[in-house]
Amino acid sequence: MKFETLHDLYLNELHDLYHAENQIIKALPKMIESANLSELRNALSNHLEQTRGHVERLEQVFRLHNEEIEGEKCKGMQGIIDEGKDLIKHDDNLDVRDAAIISAAQKVEHYEMAAYGTVRTWAKMMNHDEAAVLLQQTLDEEGEADKKLTEIAMTLNAEAVRRAG
Amino acid sequence: MKFETLHDLYLNELHDLYHAENQIIKALPKMIESANLSELRNALSNHLEQTRGHVERLEQVFRLHNEEIEGEKCKGMQGIIDEGKDLIKHDDNLDVRDAAIISAAQKVEHYEMAAYGTVRTWAKMMNHDEAAVLLQQTLDEEGEADKKLTEIAMTLNAEAVRRAG
Repeated sequence: MKFETLHDLYLNELHDLYHAENQIIKALPKMIESANLSELRNALSNHLEQTRGHVERLEQVFRLHNEEIEGEKCKGMQGIIDEGKDLIKHDDNLDVRDAAIISAAQKVEHYEMAAYGTVRTWAKMMNHDEAAVLLQQTLDEEGEADKKLTEIAMTLNAEAVRRAG
Repeated sequence: MKFETLHDLYLNELHDLYHAENQIIKALPKMIESANLSELRNALSNHLEQTRGHVERLEQVFRLHNEEIEGEKCKGMQGIIDEGKDLIKHDDNLDVRDAAIISAAQKVEHYEMAAYGTVRTWAKMMNHDEAAVLLQQTLDEEGEADKKLTEIAMTLNAEAVRRAG
C-alpha cells in the first residue's frame, strides 16, 4: 500500500485510530478493576463509555468517506498499553498503583490527542467539514479526560507521599 | 521489582524516559534524511540537538538521586517509533511523506509530554525541587517542538492538498 495523497494517509490514520480505540476498550476494564480510589474508578469508567462513543464517531467518519469500517494494527497504542500493563503488575501499595494507572492512562490520552489533532487538521485542509467536527469532538473529550486524570493525580500523589513517608 | 513508594515508580519512569530519549536519538537521523521540506529537516535537526540535552538533563537527575544512569526498555516509545517507520516507508509523494513524518514526530512529542508531565509532578510532590526544574525545562522544550511541527504541518498540508487535489 502506498500513500499517493494526503487522503490516503488520512484514511490510514483513521484505521489506526479505530484499532487503537478498540484496544483501549479491551484494556480499560482491567485498569478500572485495579484502581483503588473510587474517583479514579469513576473517571476511567466514564472514559470507557466515552471511548465507545469515539468508536461510533469513527464509524460515522468512515461512512462519510464510503470507507470500510475496519482497524489497522496500531503498534503505537499496543506498546503504550503493554507498558501500562507491566507497570500496574509491579505495584503493591494501593496509592502507588493508582499513580501508575494514571500515568499509563495519560500516555494513552496523549497518543490519542496527537492522532486526533492530526486527522482533524487534515480533514479541515481537505474540506471534510463534517468529519472535522466529529474528530474535534473526540479530541476535546480526550483533552478533558487527560485534565481530569491530572486533577486526580494531584490529590493521589499527596496521599502516596504522605503514606510512603 | 516492586514499587512500594512513589519514589520507586518515579525512578522507574525516569529510566523508561532515558531509554525513550536514546531511541529517539537513534530514530531521528532517518526521519531527517527522509524529510523533503528544508524547514522540516531543520526543525527535526534542532530537535535532535535538544534531545541530546534532554539525555544530559536526565543524567543530572539520576545523579541528584544517586541513581545509576541507565535505561529501562520503553515499550511505549518503541511502538510509536516502529509505527512511524512503517508509515514513512509507504509514502512516495514528498509532501505526503513530510505530513507522515510530522504526524509520527508529534506522537513522539506527545508521549514525552505525558511522561515528563508525570515525573515533573511527582518530583514536585516529593520536594525534589532541583529535579522538578530540570524536568520542567525539558517538558517546555517538548511542547515547543510540538507547536513548531503543527505550524509546519499547516503549510505543508495546504501544499499536499493542492498537488494531490
